[in-house]
Amino acid sequence: MRASRAVDLIRRKRDGEELTGREIDFLVEGIARGSIPDYQAAAVLMAVYLRGMTAGETLHLTLALARSGDQVPAGALLPPVMDKHSTGGVGDKTTLVVAPLLAAAGARVIKMSGRGLGHTGGTTDKLEAIPGFRTTFTPAELAALVSETGLGLAAASERLVPADGRLYAIRDVTATVDSPPLIASSIMAKKLATGAQTIVLDVKFGSGSLVGGRQEARRLAEAMLAIGAGCGRRVGAVLSDMDQPLGWAVGNALEVEEAIGCLKGAGPADLEELSLELASLALCLAGLETSAAAARDRLSALLHSGQALASFTSMVQAQGGPPGLTGSPGLYLPRAPVSASVTAPRQGWVARLDARGVGEVAALLGAGRLAHDQRVDPAVGVVLAVKVGDRVEAGDVLATVHARSAGQVAPATARLAQAFTFSDRPVTPPPLVVEVLSGE
Amino acid sequence: MRASRAVDLIRRKRDGEELTGREIDFLVEGIARGSIPDYQAAAVLMAVYLRGMTAGETLHLTLALARSGDQVPAGALLPPVMDKHSTGGVGDKTTLVVAPLLAAAGARVIKMSGRGLGHTGGTTDKLEAIPGFRTTFTPAELAALVSETGLGLAAASERLVPADGRLYAIRDVTATVDSPPLIASSIMAKKLATGAQTIVLDVKFGSGSLVGGRQEARRLAEAMLAIGAGCGRRVGAVLSDMDQPLGWAVGNALEVEEAIGCLKGAGPADLEELSLELASLALCLAGLETSAAAARDRLSALLHSGQALASFTSMVQAQGGPPGLTGSPGLYLPRAPVSASVTAPRQGWVARLDARGVGEVAALLGAGRLAHDQRVDPAVGVVLAVKVGDRVEAGDVLATVHARSAGQVAPATARLAQAFTFSDRPVTPPPLVVEVLSGE
Repeated sequence: MRASRAVDLIRRKRDGEELTGREIDFLVEGIARGSIPDYQAAAVLMAVYLRGMTAGETLHLTLALARSGDQVPAGALLPPVMDKHSTGGVGDKTTLVVAPLLAAAGARVIKMSGRGLGHTGGTTDKLEAIPGFRTTFTPAELAALVSETGLGLAAASERLVPADGRLYAIRDVTATVDSPPLIASSIMAKKLATGAQTIVLDVKFGSGSLVGGRQEARRLAEAMLAIGAGCGRRVGAVLSDMDQPLGWAVGNALEVEEAIGCLKGAGPADLEELSLELASLALCLAGLETSAAAARDRLSALLHSGQALASFTSMVQAQGGPPGLTGSPGLYLPRAPVSASVTAPRQGWVARLDARGVGEVAALLGAGRLAHDQRVDPAVGVVLAVKVGDRVEAGDVLATVHARSAGQVAPATARLAQAFTFSDRPVTPPPLVVEVLSGE
Repeated sequence: MRASRAVDLIRRKRDGEELTGREIDFLVEGIARGSIPDYQAAAVLMAVYLRGMTAGETLHLTLALARSGDQVPAGALLPPVMDKHSTGGVGDKTTLVVAPLLAAAGARVIKMSGRGLGHTGGTTDKLEAIPGFRTTFTPAELAALVSETGLGLAAASERLVPADGRLYAIRDVTATVDSPPLIASSIMAKKLATGAQTIVLDVKFGSGSLVGGRQEARRLAEAMLAIGAGCGRRVGAVLSDMDQPLGWAVGNALEVEEAIGCLKGAGPADLEELSLELASLALCLAGLETSAAAARDRLSALLHSGQALASFTSMVQAQGGPPGLTGSPGLYLPRAPVSASVTAPRQGWVARLDARGVGEVAALLGAGRLAHDQRVDPAVGVVLAVKVGDRVEAGDVLATVHARSAGQVAPATARLAQAFTFSDRPVTPPPLVVEVLSGE
């Protein structure tokens, strides 16, 4: 009976029909509980991949996923409660800057983050490069932490949206990962479960992203905004370039140090720019500021006055990290024992700096995971010395590799060199933020 | 490695790319051996369902399926070796007439048949209504039988094309059954495995068929002809109407008796017509006759002279049935204990006689299976008294139900009555054979 009903729903989705909310609930609950077998889940996922989902279906899917596990109780935190999400990239330590910025601006920031996979990094891996830093909390424990300190960053647990975990495991082995409604519902279900009323999304496009090109990024952002609108959350999205890495550092401890520098007002410029854009969008969505310009002024002041850094410092302490970290990161963060540079083979302008290539080198060094169960090395990574548009002479340092062993150096530098392309003529750097979408 | 290769092939099929022969082999062998899990099989089947397959892919799939199990060794039988297949219908006992006709015309006829499912019947179930009749043979045993007697009808075993069995089991529960390349390859793989050089296909369309409408039937026929052309078999197809049942009888023993009558030259007209059409196509394809008219004359003579009946009689004997069956079928075939008639509620012309409805009544009585593991009752069924276009007066008998118990009668007759629609004006019966396609 249950199996035949599942076949009937697969058939309807296969034929491009719209499923009802109850039918989507039946599928999600069945897949989560295992009463619908993996092969039927796989068939319906492929049908969704190729046929798509309406906005209504995507909203229902998101709500069904969010209901499948632990949730932060409504009203557990005083408003405004905010969350920020990135679709993933290389060198993307934005959360480490935006979250304390928003907390410094008076918001409660609650965030459960993923881990890196493939060429991309994950916030949880970065935070775990801080000695003693604890990332394992239940949603309720995290809410208690946020209510105390204004800011809490935890690892997404399997108890948060478990149905999504099962769906993702099947998508991963059936070539149904990169489907806009499936990605949008997976992201937004986790945001709904943590209870944030204001959600800003950093949707990245380009070689180092997981989304594809700008059109795909826009479609994904729109799908997430529609979900937010459908369940009364204030959601905005920034479409940002991930064709080259963000900032200079790629690798967990290296990125933590760079984020701390940014919170001290020392840049890098692209990281600060994107962080201010996302945080200012959040303040406007929440109604704390009426214009983006006013929001940026306020946030810039919080960054340059050290108030955002103070938020970060108290979060590190509350989550078990060393109190002196932000003062002297070098005393606490692990550092890889071997380093080597890649130099420019010719003079010219950097025309392209392939983010995916850089991310793959970092992963190869151990900063990322090639498989889900792999451990990351917190110390290793890449520090770039130039970005797209920069002028170089032959022999100038392009990037430095931080490796665990001397044997890693030659393959890493060889591959890293391939990430750079040069031009004989000046190159204009691409814009970082190309579009801001707001659900209001 | 294997799993990641499967994901890659799913992705390519998902994106509408053409898989190579080696890639299709990898998938079919992996699915048959279980090294590719069901959920990946389900994903690729849904991708094939929605993206289709090229003629080359369909041919490779057919060959990979045919290779997966026992096959009749090439050259085991003297040519011409023939096979006939129907895509399924209600009252379709054509094989019981065509096979002995072709054997009487000098061909070796080798056929492995399926069982009924849902509203359709299966040749193996019909043959098993004959007391003592054996249908279980390996392909090699069947070939030996055919070589002795010219004709052998067996049940398709799980050792014949086992990969198809596994694929079908997944298709059945993932709404991926009715895909033309999957249906065509499944049918043709079994035909290739039995070694027939000449294959005639009866592709049925209309309410009682499993194919759909005439366009779907034509596409399926063309896909099967293309497979035949690709592997050097002579394949032809007849597109025939299955909007009303074929002949008068629907039910296993009832249909055997009707087929014996047809082999005695006593009709019914539609069964004889379709049988001659299929058999004449086979003779022309095999080069035994140069024109359809000459083939029909020869076959008609074989039917009306009793030579086709003699072939059937010797086949029954060779496969363990009673030698006297064809002389006095009523002495041997089981008969249901209860019968009741459905009468016309009004005068008029029969405008429609819904084959699916009649098939469902027969299945409800026990003549067919609602699930794979169900046993059929050989005696029960329906005998029609009128067909589309016939004139009836109120109270005329439309059909008789043959039931196992009195309790079955009321629901069966009520439902059977709904299968008839009447008109106040004369109705022209639809043509039975609408098109003949030949691969040559």
